[in-house]
Amino acid sequence: MAKPSHREKILTEGLRVVHERGYAGASVRDIVQAAGVPQGSFTNHFTSKEAFGLEVIDRYFANGEELFRQTLRNDALPPLQRLRDYIDGGKDSLSCNDMRNGCLLGNFAAEASEHSEAMRLRLVEIFAEVRGAIAYCLKAAVDAGELPPEFDCDDVAGFIVSSLQGANLMAKAMRSPTPVEQCKRILFSTVLR
Amino acid sequence: MAKPSHREKILTEGLRVVHERGYAGASVRDIVQAAGVPQGSFTNHFTSKEAFGLEVIDRYFANGEELFRQTLRNDALPPLQRLRDYIDGGKDSLSCNDMRNGCLLGNFAAEASEHSEAMRLRLVEIFAEVRGAIAYCLKAAVDAGELPPEFDCDDVAGFIVSSLQGANLMAKAMRSPTPVEQCKRILFSTVLR
Repeated sequence: MAKPSHREKILTEGLRVVHERGYAGASVRDIVQAAGVPQGSFTNHFTSKEAFGLEVIDRYFANGEELFRQTLRNDALPPLQRLRDYIDGGKDSLSCNDMRNGCLLGNFAAEASEHSEAMRLRLVEIFAEVRGAIAYCLKAAVDAGELPPEFDCDDVAGFIVSSLQGANLMAKAMRSPTPVEQCKRILFSTVLR
Repeated sequence: MAKPSHREKILTEGLRVVHERGYAGASVRDIVQAAGVPQGSFTNHFTSKEAFGLEVIDRYFANGEELFRQTLRNDALPPLQRLRDYIDGGKDSLSCNDMRNGCLLGNFAAEASEHSEAMRLRLVEIFAEVRGAIAYCLKAAVDAGELPPEFDCDDVAGFIVSSLQGANLMAKAMRSPTPVEQCKRILFSTVLR
Protein backbone atom coordinates (compact mmCIF):
# COMPACT_ATOMS: atom_id res chain seq x y z
CA MET A 1 0.00 0.00 0.00
CA ALA A 2 1.28 3.49 -0.84
CA LYS A 3 2.14 5.76 2.07
CA PRO A 4 -0.70 8.21 2.80
CA SER A 5 -0.03 11.62 1.26
CA HIS A 6 0.35 14.73 3.38
CA ARG A 7 -3.06 15.81 2.15
CA GLU A 8 -4.58 12.53 3.31
CA LYS A 9 -2.88 12.74 6.70
CA ILE A 10 -4.11 16.31 7.18
CA LEU A 11 -7.68 15.24 6.41
CA THR A 12 -7.66 12.08 8.55
CA GLU A 13 -5.91 13.54 11.58
CA GLY A 14 -7.45 16.96 11.07
CA LEU A 15 -10.96 15.49 11.15
CA ARG A 16 -10.11 13.77 14.43
CA VAL A 17 -8.72 16.99 15.92
CA VAL A 18 -11.62 19.28 14.92
CA HIS A 19 -14.08 16.61 16.04
CA GLU A 20 -12.46 16.61 19.48
CA ARG A 21 -11.70 20.32 19.91
CA GLY A 22 -14.09 22.07 17.53
CA TYR A 23 -13.47 24.03 14.33
CA ALA A 24 -12.54 27.27 16.10
CA GLY A 25 -10.90 25.37 18.97
CA ALA A 26 -8.34 23.65 16.71
CA SER A 27 -5.81 25.85 14.93
CA VAL A 28 -4.09 25.01 11.63
CA ARG A 29 -0.99 24.49 13.77
CA ASP A 30 -2.83 21.89 15.91
CA ILE A 31 -3.96 20.13 12.72
CA VAL A 32 -0.53 19.90 11.04
CA GLN A 33 1.06 18.84 14.34
CA ALA A 34 -1.46 16.00 14.71
CA ALA A 35 -0.88 15.01 11.08
CA GLY A 36 2.90 15.10 11.58
CA VAL A 37 3.45 17.21 8.45
CA PRO A 38 5.18 20.59 8.00
CA GLN A 39 2.98 23.68 8.46
CA GLY A 40 3.55 24.68 4.80
CA SER A 41 1.88 21.43 3.73
CA PHE A 42 -1.51 22.76 4.81
CA THR A 43 -1.40 25.77 2.50
CA ASN A 44 -0.09 23.57 -0.32
CA HIS A 45 -3.21 21.43 -0.16
CA PHE A 46 -5.95 23.75 1.10
CA THR A 47 -6.61 27.32 0.05
CA SER A 48 -7.95 28.14 3.54
CA LYS A 49 -9.07 26.60 6.82
CA GLU A 50 -12.63 26.92 5.46
CA ALA A 51 -11.73 24.81 2.37
CA PHE A 52 -10.33 22.18 4.75
CA GLY A 53 -13.47 22.41 6.93
CA LEU A 54 -15.72 21.81 3.91
CA GLU A 55 -13.76 18.67 2.99
CA VAL A 56 -13.90 17.46 6.59
CA ILE A 57 -17.69 17.85 6.60
CA ASP A 58 -18.05 15.79 3.41
CA ARG A 59 -15.65 13.12 4.59
CA TYR A 60 -17.52 12.82 7.91
CA PHE A 61 -20.90 12.72 6.18
CA ALA A 62 -19.72 9.89 3.87
CA ASN A 63 -20.15 7.59 6.89
CA GLY A 64 -23.69 8.87 7.33
CA GLU A 65 -24.48 8.14 3.68
CA GLU A 66 -23.18 4.59 4.06
CA LEU A 67 -25.43 4.19 7.12
CA PHE A 68 -28.42 5.43 5.04
CA ARG A 69 -27.75 2.67 2.48
CA GLN A 70 -27.55 0.00 5.16
CA THR A 71 -30.57 1.18 7.12
CA LEU A 72 -33.05 3.92 6.11
CA ARG A 73 -32.86 3.27 2.35
CA ASN A 74 -32.40 -0.50 2.62
CA ASP A 75 -35.66 -1.78 1.11
CA ALA A 76 -34.83 -5.36 2.12
CA LEU A 77 -35.69 -4.64 5.78
CA PRO A 78 -39.00 -3.69 7.48
CA PRO A 79 -39.22 0.14 7.48
CA LEU A 80 -39.47 1.02 11.19
CA GLN A 81 -36.74 -1.54 11.96
CA ARG A 82 -34.53 0.43 9.54
CA LEU A 83 -35.11 3.60 11.53
CA ARG A 84 -34.27 1.78 14.78
CA ASP A 85 -31.09 0.46 13.18
CA TYR A 86 -30.21 3.94 11.92
CA ILE A 87 -30.51 5.46 15.41
CA ASP A 88 -28.51 2.59 16.95
CA GLY A 89 -25.85 2.89 14.22
CA GLY A 90 -25.53 6.63 14.80
CA LYS A 91 -25.23 6.08 18.54
CA ASP A 92 -22.55 3.41 18.05
CA SER A 93 -20.55 5.70 15.78
CA LEU A 94 -20.55 8.41 18.50
CA SER A 95 -19.85 6.05 21.38
CA CYS A 96 -16.06 6.33 21.56
CA ASN A 97 -14.85 8.18 24.67
CA ASP A 98 -18.29 8.06 26.27
CA MET A 99 -19.92 10.09 23.47
CA ARG A 100 -17.72 13.05 24.35
CA ASN A 101 -17.04 14.17 20.77
CA GLY A 102 -20.70 14.36 19.73
CA CYS A 103 -21.82 14.59 16.11
CA LEU A 104 -19.36 16.66 14.09
CA LEU A 105 -22.21 18.08 11.99
CA GLY A 106 -24.08 19.29 15.07
CA ASN A 107 -20.91 20.66 16.65
CA PHE A 108 -20.08 22.57 13.48
CA ALA A 109 -23.65 23.87 13.25
CA ALA A 110 -23.21 25.24 16.78
CA GLU A 111 -19.86 26.91 16.31
CA ALA A 112 -18.54 26.95 12.72
CA SER A 113 -21.68 28.20 11.00
CA GLU A 114 -20.99 31.69 12.33
CA HIS A 115 -17.43 31.65 10.96
CA SER A 116 -18.17 30.38 7.45
CA GLU A 117 -21.30 30.87 5.35
CA ALA A 118 -20.16 28.10 2.94
CA MET A 119 -19.91 25.62 5.79
CA ARG A 120 -23.27 26.70 7.21
CA LEU A 121 -24.97 26.19 3.84
CA ARG A 122 -23.34 22.77 3.36
CA LEU A 123 -24.55 21.72 6.83
CA VAL A 124 -28.10 22.83 6.03
CA GLU A 125 -27.94 20.78 2.80
CA ILE A 126 -26.73 17.72 4.71
CA PHE A 127 -29.45 18.02 7.38
CA ALA A 128 -31.96 18.15 4.48
CA GLU A 129 -30.43 14.94 3.08
CA VAL A 130 -30.79 13.22 6.46
CA ARG A 131 -34.37 14.42 6.65
CA GLY A 132 -35.01 13.08 3.12
CA ALA A 133 -33.63 9.64 4.01
CA ILE A 134 -35.76 9.47 7.17
CA ALA A 135 -38.87 10.65 5.24
CA TYR A 136 -38.19 7.93 2.61
CA CYS A 137 -38.14 5.32 5.38
CA LEU A 138 -41.31 6.69 7.03
CA LYS A 139 -43.14 6.65 3.66
CA ALA A 140 -42.16 3.00 3.29
CA ALA A 141 -43.57 2.42 6.79
CA VAL A 142 -46.87 4.00 5.72
CA ASP A 143 -46.97 1.83 2.56
CA ALA A 144 -46.25 -1.26 4.68
CA GLY A 145 -49.07 -0.39 7.09
CA GLU A 146 -46.64 0.22 9.97
CA LEU A 147 -47.83 3.85 10.23
CA PRO A 148 -51.30 5.29 9.50
CA PRO A 149 -52.03 6.55 5.94
CA GLU A 150 -52.41 10.19 7.03
CA PHE A 151 -48.97 10.24 8.73
CA ASP A 152 -47.03 13.43 7.83
CA CYS A 153 -43.70 11.82 6.92
CA ASP A 154 -41.81 14.98 5.91
CA ASP A 155 -42.83 16.94 8.99
CA VAL A 156 -42.00 14.13 11.42
CA ALA A 157 -38.71 13.44 9.60
CA GLY A 158 -37.66 17.03 10.28
CA PHE A 159 -38.58 16.63 13.94
CA ILE A 160 -36.58 13.39 14.19
CA VAL A 161 -33.45 14.97 12.64
CA SER A 162 -33.62 17.85 15.07
CA SER A 163 -34.48 15.73 18.13
CA LEU A 164 -31.62 13.32 17.40
CA GLN A 165 -29.21 16.24 17.08
CA GLY A 166 -30.42 17.49 20.46
CA ALA A 167 -29.98 14.02 21.96
CA ASN A 168 -26.43 13.82 20.55
CA LEU A 169 -25.68 17.21 22.09
CA MET A 170 -27.02 16.20 25.52
CA ALA A 171 -25.10 12.89 25.24
CA LYS A 172 -21.92 14.84 24.53
CA ALA A 173 -22.45 17.14 27.53
CA MET A 174 -23.38 14.26 29.85
CA ARG A 175 -20.85 11.81 28.34
CA SER A 176 -23.55 9.17 28.30
CA PRO A 177 -25.65 7.46 25.60
CA THR A 178 -28.78 7.81 27.77
CA PRO A 179 -30.25 10.86 25.95
CA VAL A 180 -30.06 9.05 22.59
CA GLU A 181 -31.68 5.93 24.04
CA GLN A 182 -34.39 8.07 25.65
CA CYS A 183 -35.01 9.87 22.36
CA LYS A 184 -35.40 6.57 20.47
CA ARG A 185 -37.68 5.07 23.12
CA ILE A 186 -40.00 8.08 23.30
CA LEU A 187 -40.13 8.58 19.52
CA PHE A 188 -41.22 4.96 19.02
CA SER A 189 -43.71 4.92 21.90
CA THR A 190 -45.43 8.22 20.97
CA VAL A 191 -44.62 9.95 17.66
CA LEU A 192 -44.23 6.78 15.57
CA ARG A 193 -47.40 4.96 16.61
CA MET B 1 -26.88 55.77 37.70
CA ALA B 2 -23.26 54.78 38.32
CA LYS B 3 -21.11 54.04 35.28
CA PRO B 4 -20.82 50.30 34.65
CA SER B 5 -17.56 48.92 36.03
CA HIS B 6 -14.97 47.32 33.78
CA ARG B 7 -15.99 43.97 35.21
CA GLU B 8 -19.63 44.61 34.28
CA LYS B 9 -18.69 45.74 30.77
CA ILE B 10 -16.55 42.63 30.26
CA LEU B 11 -19.45 40.41 31.32
CA THR B 12 -22.13 42.20 29.31
CA GLU B 13 -20.16 42.65 26.09
CA GLY B 14 -18.25 39.40 26.58
CA LEU B 15 -21.49 37.44 26.83
CA ARG B 16 -22.62 39.00 23.54
CA VAL B 17 -19.30 38.18 21.84
CA VAL B 18 -19.07 34.54 22.96
CA HIS B 19 -22.74 34.05 22.13
CA GLU B 20 -22.05 35.23 18.58
CA ARG B 21 -18.63 33.67 17.96
CA GLY B 22 -18.42 30.79 20.44
CA TYR B 23 -16.26 30.28 23.50
CA ALA B 24 -13.21 29.05 21.57
CA GLY B 25 -14.01 31.39 18.65
CA ALA B 26 -13.76 34.55 20.78
CA SER B 27 -10.39 35.39 22.32
CA VAL B 28 -9.83 37.40 25.50
CA ARG B 29 -8.58 40.14 23.16
CA ASP B 30 -11.92 40.07 21.27
CA ILE B 31 -13.77 40.32 24.58
CA VAL B 32 -11.84 43.29 26.01
CA GLN B 33 -12.00 45.07 22.66
CA ALA B 34 -15.79 44.68 22.57
CA ALA B 35 -16.00 45.89 26.18
CA GLY B 36 -13.76 48.86 25.41
CA VAL B 37 -11.51 48.19 28.41
CA PRO B 38 -7.73 47.62 28.62
CA GLN B 39 -6.55 44.01 28.20
CA GLY B 40 -5.14 44.00 31.76
CA SER B 41 -8.65 44.60 33.06
CA PHE B 42 -9.63 41.06 32.18
CA THR B 43 -6.97 39.47 34.36
CA ASN B 44 -7.78 41.94 37.17
CA HIS B 45 -11.34 40.66 37.30
CA PHE B 46 -11.15 37.02 36.18
CA THR B 47 -8.56 34.43 37.13
CA SER B 48 -8.94 32.74 33.73
CA LYS B 49 -11.07 32.61 30.59
CA GLU B 50 -12.78 29.60 32.19
CA ALA B 51 -13.74 31.66 35.28
CA PHE B 52 -15.23 34.26 32.90
CA GLY B 53 -17.03 31.48 30.95
CA LEU B 54 -18.61 30.14 34.15
CA GLU B 55 -19.94 33.59 35.04
CA VAL B 56 -21.27 34.06 31.51
CA ILE B 57 -23.16 30.76 31.75
CA ASP B 58 -24.81 31.79 35.04
CA ARG B 59 -25.65 35.26 33.77
CA TYR B 60 -27.23 33.81 30.62
CA PHE B 61 -29.16 31.20 32.60
CA ALA B 62 -30.59 33.87 34.92
CA ASN B 63 -32.91 34.78 32.01
CA GLY B 64 -33.97 31.12 31.78
CA GLU B 65 -34.76 31.06 35.51
CA GLU B 66 -36.89 34.18 35.16
CA LEU B 67 -38.76 32.48 32.29
CA PHE B 68 -39.35 29.42 34.53
CA ARG B 69 -40.99 31.66 37.13
CA GLN B 70 -43.24 33.30 34.53
CA THR B 71 -44.20 30.07 32.77
CA LEU B 72 -43.34 26.49 33.86
CA ARG B 73 -43.49 27.18 37.61
CA ASN B 74 -46.28 29.74 37.45
CA ASP B 75 -49.11 27.93 39.22
CA ALA B 76 -51.60 30.64 38.27
CA LEU B 77 -51.78 29.39 34.67
CA PRO B 78 -53.08 26.08 33.18
CA PRO B 79 -50.10 23.66 33.08
CA LEU B 80 -49.78 22.82 29.37
CA GLN B 81 -50.31 26.47 28.49
CA ARG B 82 -47.28 27.22 30.68
CA LEU B 83 -45.18 24.81 28.61
CA ARG B 84 -46.40 26.44 25.38
CA ASP B 85 -45.51 29.86 26.79
CA TYR B 86 -42.09 28.57 27.86
CA ILE B 87 -41.29 27.31 24.35
CA ASP B 88 -42.55 30.55 22.78
CA GLY B 89 -40.57 32.62 25.28
CA GLY B 90 -37.40 30.68 24.53
CA LYS B 91 -37.95 31.11 20.80
CA ASP B 92 -38.51 34.85 21.20
CA SER B 93 -35.33 35.23 23.22
CA LEU B 94 -33.32 33.55 20.42
CA SER B 95 -35.04 35.38 17.59
CA CYS B 96 -32.62 38.27 17.12
CA ASN B 97 -30.63 38.06 13.87
CA ASP B 98 -32.84 35.26 12.49
CA MET B 99 -31.96 32.88 15.35
CA ARG B 100 -28.32 32.91 14.23
CA ASN B 101 -26.78 32.92 17.70
CA GLY B 102 -28.67 29.89 18.99
CA CYS B 103 -28.89 28.99 22.67
CA LEU B 104 -25.64 29.84 24.44
CA LEU B 105 -26.00 26.78 26.69
CA GLY B 106 -26.32 24.43 23.71
CA ASN B 107 -23.47 26.16 21.87
CA PHE B 108 -21.23 25.82 24.89
CA ALA B 109 -22.22 22.16 25.33
CA ALA B 110 -21.11 21.60 21.73
CA GLU B 111 -17.79 23.36 21.89
CA ALA B 112 -16.73 24.51 25.34
CA SER B 113 -17.42 21.30 27.25
CA GLU B 114 -14.28 19.77 25.74
CA HIS B 115 -12.17 22.74 26.87
CA SER B 116 -13.37 23.00 30.46
CA GLU B 117 -14.62 20.28 32.77
CA ALA B 118 -16.02 22.88 35.20
CA MET B 119 -18.10 24.45 32.42
CA ARG B 120 -19.29 21.04 31.21
CA LEU B 121 -20.44 20.09 34.72
CA ARG B 122 -22.22 23.42 35.19
CA LEU B 123 -24.04 22.95 31.87
CA VAL B 124 -25.14 19.44 32.88
CA GLU B 125 -26.47 20.89 36.16
CA ILE B 126 -28.39 23.58 34.29
CA PHE B 127 -29.93 21.13 31.83
CA ALA B 128 -31.06 19.12 34.87
CA GLU B 129 -32.67 22.29 36.29
CA VAL B 130 -34.52 22.88 33.00
CA ARG B 131 -35.66 19.27 33.04
CA GLY B 132 -36.85 19.67 36.63
CA ALA B 133 -38.89 22.76 35.79
CA ILE B 134 -40.51 21.02 32.79
CA ALA B 135 -41.22 17.90 34.89
CA TYR B 136 -42.84 20.13 37.55
CA CYS B 137 -45.12 21.58 34.89
CA LEU B 138 -45.98 18.15 33.42
CA LYS B 139 -46.83 16.81 36.90
CA ALA B 140 -49.18 19.76 37.35
CA ALA B 141 -50.72 18.83 33.98
CA VAL B 142 -51.30 15.27 35.22
CA ASP B 143 -52.87 16.59 38.44
CA ALA B 144 -55.12 18.88 36.40
CA GLY B 145 -56.20 16.00 34.16
CA GLU B 146 -54.51 17.50 31.09
CA LEU B 147 -52.30 14.42 30.79
CA PRO B 148 -53.10 10.80 31.73
CA PRO B 149 -52.25 9.60 35.28
CA GLU B 150 -49.59 7.11 34.07
CA PHE B 151 -47.68 9.80 32.13
CA ASP B 152 -43.91 9.54 32.79
CA CYS B 153 -43.21 13.23 33.52
CA ASP B 154 -39.48 12.92 34.26
CA ASP B 155 -38.70 10.86 31.20
CA VAL B 156 -40.67 13.08 28.84
CA ALA B 157 -39.19 16.22 30.44
CA GLY B 158 -35.70 14.94 29.54
CA PHE B 159 -36.85 14.29 25.98
CA ILE B 160 -38.31 17.81 25.72
CA VAL B 161 -35.10 19.48 26.97
CA SER B 162 -33.04 17.56 24.45
CA SER B 163 -35.48 17.99 21.54
CA LEU B 164 -35.71 21.74 22.16
CA GLN B 165 -31.91 21.99 22.20
CA GLY B 166 -31.87 20.16 18.85
CA ALA B 167 -34.52 22.49 17.46
CA ASN B 168 -32.52 25.53 18.63
CA LEU B 169 -29.43 24.10 16.91
CA MET B 170 -31.28 23.50 13.62
CA ALA B 171 -32.83 26.98 13.89
CA LYS B 172 -29.34 28.45 14.28
CA ALA B 173 -28.01 26.56 11.25
CA MET B 174 -31.05 27.41 9.10
CA ARG B 175 -31.46 30.94 10.51
CA SER B 176 -35.16 30.30 10.87
CA PRO B 177 -37.57 29.71 13.76
CA THR B 178 -39.26 26.87 11.80
CA PRO B 179 -37.51 23.97 13.64
CA VAL B 180 -38.64 25.31 17.03
CA GLU B 181 -42.21 25.78 15.78
CA GLN B 182 -42.16 22.27 14.32
CA CYS B 183 -40.85 20.84 17.58
CA LYS B 184 -43.61 22.51 19.60
CA ARG B 185 -46.35 21.45 17.18
CA ILE B 186 -45.26 17.81 17.06
CA LEU B 187 -44.66 17.56 20.83
CA PHE B 188 -48.18 18.79 21.53
CA SER B 189 -49.88 16.68 18.85
CA THR B 190 -48.14 13.41 19.78
CA VAL B 191 -46.03 13.18 22.95
CA LEU B 192 -48.23 15.42 25.11
CA ARG B 193 -51.59 13.85 24.38
